[in-house]
Amino acid sequence: MRSVSLFIATSLDGYIAKPNDDLSFLKIVEKEGEDYGYAAFAANIDTIILGRKTYAYVLKEIGNSHYDNGARDVYVITRTERPVAGRTRFYTGDLTELVQRLKSETGKNIYCDGGAEVINELLNNDLVDELIVSIIPILVGNGTRLFKDGRPEQALELVQTKTFETGLVQLQYRRKRNLNQPG
Amino acid sequence: MRSVSLFIATSLDGYIAKPNDDLSFLKIVEKEGEDYGYAAFAANIDTIILGRKTYAYVLKEIGNSHYDNGARDVYVITRTERPVAGRTRFYTGDLTELVQRLKSETGKNIYCDGGAEVINELLNNDLVDELIVSIIPILVGNGTRLFKDGRPEQALELVQTKTFETGLVQLQYRRKRNLNQPG
Repeated sequence: MRSVSLFIATSLDGYIAKPNDDLSFLKIVEKEGEDYGYAAFAANIDTIILGRKTYAYVLKEIGNSHYDNGARDVYVITRTERPVAGRTRFYTGDLTELVQRLKSETGKNIYCDGGAEVINELLNNDLVDELIVSIIPILVGNGTRLFKDGRPEQALELVQTKTFETGLVQLQYRRKRNLNQPG
Repeated sequence: MRSVSLFIATSLDGYIAKPNDDLSFLKIVEKEGEDYGYAAFAANIDTIILGRKTYAYVLKEIGNSHYDNGARDVYVITRTERPVAGRTRFYTGDLTELVQRLKSETGKNIYCDGGAEVINELLNNDLVDELIVSIIPILVGNGTRLFKDGRPEQALELVQTKTFETGLVQLQYRRKRNLNQPG
């Protein structure tokens, strides 16, 4: 079955952005030719799910080539109906239903690219199979937390750890299923 | 100069305890003969600072041999005056003043053993030199966060990473001083 994966960077104190969507702390691990495994990860996905604000942010900062390049199905979770644009769909329905449907179909893996609201809704519904978390060597002190309060407990299995010269540590986990759950 | 160190375990989602001081998730990494480097760490400290609630918790769960064993100076941060008991002092003054005084004295390193309130007050005042954070392979979903919102930014240097069979990953960082700071 297709996995739903997170591939995300966070400060040691657990923030994915400083206040006002400030991602400048990611610069401290930027290094020519080092993508921290993103290309290898992306080669195994064919579907991206992300929130409307994250989509708008990337459109503004990187341009529409990042998502709307025809290479992958992109689902933007939003409350506002918009027409399909190539392989980019604006999805106003129930997130759990979407993910359950996508997982029942054949294909490569599914990447949830944020933001925190979409990630936490997936975690709340026990829909994340794999977490690849890159820890940036900084305490940013404040901002948007990767993990919000009030989620269900989820046991994890450590798959591997990678330590990079820049001080970034990448942790890869898979969810552990409860013994009485199928699959 | 003496360092102030944290040596603490957290879930991947950043909690040091579940609601009601429930630490049962630490059991998933318990292993006969594996102390995750605690004895080696403790050999380099001679002073412990901790909050009153953490002190009371350990007294109740482990007994008074853990802190009040005469081997180290123990400072319990509290608002209630109590007489010195052996090398255990109940400190009602300003935490920053205490730590600055201890750091100016000679001795081994200083260990802040929690709780979150004391740790965050030290972080707020830029008094933590070393962080040894052990990440337990679980999302607990809710509880007491290691890092509270609203601290100052602090750049870190990754010293080392250790991965254990149980899935625990231990990250060791030292604070980076700003270029215009002394020492």
